[in-house]
Amino acid sequence: MNKTILLKQRPVGKPTASEFEFIQSDDQLTIKEGELLLETTYVSVDPYLRGRMSDAKSYIPPFEVGKPISSGVIAKVIASKNKNFNDGDYVSGSLEWKTQQVSNGDGLTKVNKDLAPLSAYLGILGMTGLTAFLGLHEIGKPKAGETIVVSGAAGAVGSVVGQIAKILGLHVIGIAGSDEKIEMLTSDFGFDAGINYNETKDMSAAIKAAAPNGVDIYFDNVGGPISDAVLFNINRFARMIICGAISVYNSTEVPTGVSVQPFLVKNSALMQGFIVSNYADKFPEAMKQLSIWLCEGKLKYTETVVEGFDNIPSAFLDLFDGKNKGKMIVKI
Amino acid sequence: MNKTILLKQRPVGKPTASEFEFIQSDDQLTIKEGELLLETTYVSVDPYLRGRMSDAKSYIPPFEVGKPISSGVIAKVIASKNKNFNDGDYVSGSLEWKTQQVSNGDGLTKVNKDLAPLSAYLGILGMTGLTAFLGLHEIGKPKAGETIVVSGAAGAVGSVVGQIAKILGLHVIGIAGSDEKIEMLTSDFGFDAGINYNETKDMSAAIKAAAPNGVDIYFDNVGGPISDAVLFNINRFARMIICGAISVYNSTEVPTGVSVQPFLVKNSALMQGFIVSNYADKFPEAMKQLSIWLCEGKLKYTETVVEGFDNIPSAFLDLFDGKNKGKMIVKI
Repeated sequence: MNKTILLKQRPVGKPTASEFEFIQSDDQLTIKEGELLLETTYVSVDPYLRGRMSDAKSYIPPFEVGKPISSGVIAKVIASKNKNFNDGDYVSGSLEWKTQQVSNGDGLTKVNKDLAPLSAYLGILGMTGLTAFLGLHEIGKPKAGETIVVSGAAGAVGSVVGQIAKILGLHVIGIAGSDEKIEMLTSDFGFDAGINYNETKDMSAAIKAAAPNGVDIYFDNVGGPISDAVLFNINRFARMIICGAISVYNSTEVPTGVSVQPFLVKNSALMQGFIVSNYADKFPEAMKQLSIWLCEGKLKYTETVVEGFDNIPSAFLDLFDGKNKGKMIVKI
Repeated sequence: MNKTILLKQRPVGKPTASEFEFIQSDDQLTIKEGELLLETTYVSVDPYLRGRMSDAKSYIPPFEVGKPISSGVIAKVIASKNKNFNDGDYVSGSLEWKTQQVSNGDGLTKVNKDLAPLSAYLGILGMTGLTAFLGLHEIGKPKAGETIVVSGAAGAVGSVVGQIAKILGLHVIGIAGSDEKIEMLTSDFGFDAGINYNETKDMSAAIKAAAPNGVDIYFDNVGGPISDAVLFNINRFARMIICGAISVYNSTEVPTGVSVQPFLVKNSALMQGFIVSNYADKFPEAMKQLSIWLCEGKLKYTETVVEGFDNIPSAFLDLFDGKNKGKMIVKI
């Protein structure tokens, strides 16, 4: 029995379960010469998928209504007529939300389950780790002794950004939505300070207190009022990496907030949107460094693992309520 | 009789004449060894001076209450005990709003009145021209065939930015506040299109119509709703030079508007605050190119010249009502 999850309709505002449709089929999948039969092992759910559910112009084509949704997936090769892959191999790639599927192998990378747990290839050794590493380096240009603020700090990307910044000698402040998450950031991941935005009335004052020398780098995963509060604390030549804006992805109106332009002028500051796929030429080098730090124990990661193919949509929806710590992954 | 203009009090909101105080003295100014006696010839009034009238932290120290205001000035050397300057020389520099003053020569540059009109050294061959040239090149990174939108396009900086962009082969759209200004941009300065924001209901739609291929570069002198409207039309990898925000300089509350972050993420776009003094090492090269284009007739400029020392404050205040075309200068 092969199951597939389709986009049933485009969400307006916050997505709900009714935007997803499950279909199933008893048909036996067959493969031709050059093809592989894949069985899904782990599925990555990510905030950016919300953008693909809409049909607005963006850097990546929208999902089509009535067609399968896709995301980062780890799959096991259960039959191969492709000389590059053998039965029993595990692969990583952008694949459809199906329990089984056929691929010609394009865009798939073999992953080694003896070097790291398979799910790590969706997280710290996958797009998440690359996003943290390359966003921080390419736009943030971190220097030892500087101060960085990370929003969505307990999330998949944010928790890695903060750790890399610590390795590089920065003063690291994480913003997250619960005391439990803040505790994880400071105790497990070595952040210097954390701010629970759900328990803080004056975010700008809290950031000022945590960053007495001002903010040199802001790694922004959330947008909205949290990012507005950071603006009041930036230093001259501050760099702001705009990696995500989860707080406004479900807005039905154009989001508004503090005008950033006067802050940028006064501080000769920079804000730049970051999409990891623009930096593909730097993936090998970044991956190498991440693997080394991981082996050395300098980099840790946490995952929120949900079990069962049927729970992919709810795991995705939980991202918007901040129910994950670290990378949100569905184990099939 | 030597006159001086002091900052009487810090403005709240839009400055008025009552923020300025005139004092005068009959005392004969004397110079010591190494000093010069200067007579003011031209005074530059610029929107950024509004920031210096406040005591908020910024890239440049605030004016002090009860002390003279200063800005870009052209002055004539009427007596010299400094070997680098002779009687009759004209100099350019940041000087106080005085009819006569003593200087030790630091920070003064001799200007040649036979190569260009003296006032040009406050405009196209001064900070204005350097701001246009370096902001466009260093942050905008213009490429032939791209589309640029310039706000405050009929102002001192904007009118030069558009002309340089045309020289470089871009499609140039200027935004200004009267039909007369738009006519000047398209007829005199070669802009491809102009939008009068005072006569346009839907700025975003107007920009879309004028920029059918989208906006690659936005040179922003104004901030506020005009800049918000540009966001809806930016292309992937757009660069936005945040050079000024005259529309909000007089705000008594924190200005708000469209949140830029989602637009930056979706388009991998960049916004950066630009202050010309950060690029001092590039001034000679930029000045050389500006002089060449000016001599070749490829670059034109316009000035709004107000006469009389006593009119310096009103000339400054008129900037906020857009009463200037090109550089606003006071001739003493």
